[in-house]
Amino acid sequence: MAAHRFYAPQASRIGQTVALPPGEAHQLRHVLRLRRDATVHAFDGRGREFVARVQAVDRDGVSIRTVEAVEPAREPAVDLALALAVLKGRTTAAVVRDATMLGARTIQPITTARSPAGAAAAGLDRAVDRWQAIAIASAKQCRRAVVPAVRPPLPFAELVARGPCGLGIMLVEPAIAAPHASIRTVADQPPPARATIAVGPEGGWTDAEVEAAAGAGFRLLTLGSRTLRAAAAPAAALAILQYVWGDL
Amino acid sequence: MAAHRFYAPQASRIGQTVALPPGEAHQLRHVLRLRRDATVHAFDGRGREFVARVQAVDRDGVSIRTVEAVEPAREPAVDLALALAVLKGRTTAAVVRDATMLGARTIQPITTARSPAGAAAAGLDRAVDRWQAIAIASAKQCRRAVVPAVRPPLPFAELVARGPCGLGIMLVEPAIAAPHASIRTVADQPPPARATIAVGPEGGWTDAEVEAAAGAGFRLLTLGSRTLRAAAAPAAALAILQYVWGDL
Repeated sequence: MAAHRFYAPQASRIGQTVALPPGEAHQLRHVLRLRRDATVHAFDGRGREFVARVQAVDRDGVSIRTVEAVEPAREPAVDLALALAVLKGRTTAAVVRDATMLGARTIQPITTARSPAGAAAAGLDRAVDRWQAIAIASAKQCRRAVVPAVRPPLPFAELVARGPCGLGIMLVEPAIAAPHASIRTVADQPPPARATIAVGPEGGWTDAEVEAAAGAGFRLLTLGSRTLRAAAAPAAALAILQYVWGDL
Repeated sequence: MAAHRFYAPQASRIGQTVALPPGEAHQLRHVLRLRRDATVHAFDGRGREFVARVQAVDRDGVSIRTVEAVEPAREPAVDLALALAVLKGRTTAAVVRDATMLGARTIQPITTARSPAGAAAAGLDRAVDRWQAIAIASAKQCRRAVVPAVRPPLPFAELVARGPCGLGIMLVEPAIAAPHASIRTVADQPPPARATIAVGPEGGWTDAEVEAAAGAGFRLLTLGSRTLRAAAAPAAALAILQYVWGDL
């Protein structure tokens, strides 16, 4: 039976006593009903993982003491950012969850011309907190020691103005007019140190967005000849990129 | 603007007048409000696609006349069956939808030792109809001309007794005890004509199931070092296999 894992962002070395964040403390105490001296795993969300012992469980919270370093799950070689157009309802959350399991290091929500109404970058602060919590939960579940950082949303124009960090990929539909290539072409080059993959909303990118991205250095790539749902495309693309770059 | 597509299983040649199934007729008449002489696309679910003209729209339904053959979306080279352990709630439906977009040719629901309560093969007849309808809707959306066949559910033991059709793959968790390999190893061989990939339920396979599958010729393969959700693993595995076999 694998050890219960807790997110302990303050844990940085062996022999340290740290408090668990409230949500983690609640789960340890009230859901799993663990007590003092129970052995658990703690990961700091930046790639470190420890065996830890529960030190105190009381109204003030839960503290644990790191006992021993553990080899964390291997991270992908490529530092991969997903620039994700905000999707309808809970769909963005589902993509954040899967992108975490598929090894994304950063999730950059973006708002685009065809983003659903209400997805203005300014109104998304609470959503970002929720997506970050989902990234933590997903890292726990898939036994990853790194929690992807969910960034504050950016308007698409600003993403383009900054340019891609590392290799820039914009996922486009097979029917798009602009010159584009298959995602297979990424395998023609050695893995980059960093990459950014931009995935559009349900209604797709506008022609102007595609042009702007191409002008800023994003490569326009497609995932085969069928049109994937906006909610399914990010996971399929991440799975293939991680495969090509040797992680999956 | 791409033409509206309708599923017309009776369409088989040019110059033929066929009735649309009730759900398709409803969509044409009441949702899209198309009329006589409108030009649409019709696909038969087995890989043929036509330009068609709306012939009659009335209380009895909708009939269309095929006018011209259209080059259908390219199908994957490998005839790929997904043997999918029935998942909780609506999750199975979501996987059927994505597997259709990712080019699965057959979806074989299976019931396993850790399938959710209520997922006995005998009680799933209505669920199969629903999943088949979802496969049709997904084929329409992704512009595929082939609708994957959703088979009647099988107990896992029977799947194993029949053995895999073509190359057999069982997707297992990285932590599993039995000897297993990375999904990367499929790339060491030329693409098979047919393949079956078995994916387990939320609780995973039992040791006995893994052993039985290995004994029946399934290769035990993992998707990297992180544990993917049961609902996300099929799409990630299908995306990678279709990539390796040249489709995506």
